[in-house]
Amino acid sequence: MMMNEIINIKSKLNQIKKIWTPKIIEQMNDYHIKVAKFKDEFVWHSHTDTDEVFIVIEGSMTIHFRDKDVHLNKGDMYVVPKGIEHKPSAINECEVLLIEPAGTVNTGDVDSELKASNKEWI
Amino acid sequence: MMMNEIINIKSKLNQIKKIWTPKIIEQMNDYHIKVAKFKDEFVWHSHTDTDEVFIVIEGSMTIHFRDKDVHLNKGDMYVVPKGIEHKPSAINECEVLLIEPAGTVNTGDVDSELKASNKEWI
Repeated sequence: MMMNEIINIKSKLNQIKKIWTPKIIEQMNDYHIKVAKFKDEFVWHSHTDTDEVFIVIEGSMTIHFRDKDVHLNKGDMYVVPKGIEHKPSAINECEVLLIEPAGTVNTGDVDSELKASNKEWI
Repeated sequence: MMMNEIINIKSKLNQIKKIWTPKIIEQMNDYHIKVAKFKDEFVWHSHTDTDEVFIVIEGSMTIHFRDKDVHLNKGDMYVVPKGIEHKPSAINECEVLLIEPAGTVNTGDVDSELKASNKEWI
């Protein structure tokens, strides 16, 4: 639990070694704030019970939807609505801040080898 | 409601004219993501029912507590726990991202001329 500490977002991102593996950096109420590095393609999935906030800290990425692609650059934010299938991707490594309820699983409703722990802090 | 749009955080901040007046830029579940400009001193207050996330987008600021001062620079995040009295301040104008439940009032439990609407989007 990091509450009551100053969290430098870039410093936390610099500690991440594995792509597509979000790490918790803070908690507010029953929500977690996480950082992650994205590269190449993630898996199609959705989160049945929650919206999901993406904020690009460094680089650029795409969120693919079944009917459109959303391109995000540094400083952009996008909320994926709950229940909507999406697939993040990034041509070059992209650093992202995520906001979602504690316990949210990165692969949502889908079984995948990219499924990461939803409990690891960094 | 901006959901399903790409939100550039700096562009939203550039539209803010009045200090200490948070504006909503996005909603996720029943939470609002807001931007605000801080300068000089805010008022001592607390939020009885919720933690509050501060992320410094540009500049630097201080969150005063009764027992300590927390100095935040660009890229730093801090969570003020619910019920804890605090007073934000900034020597020079500081641009901030806030995350808190929809309906949260900037002055919390305190009556002040700095009380702002909790419903205005930008």
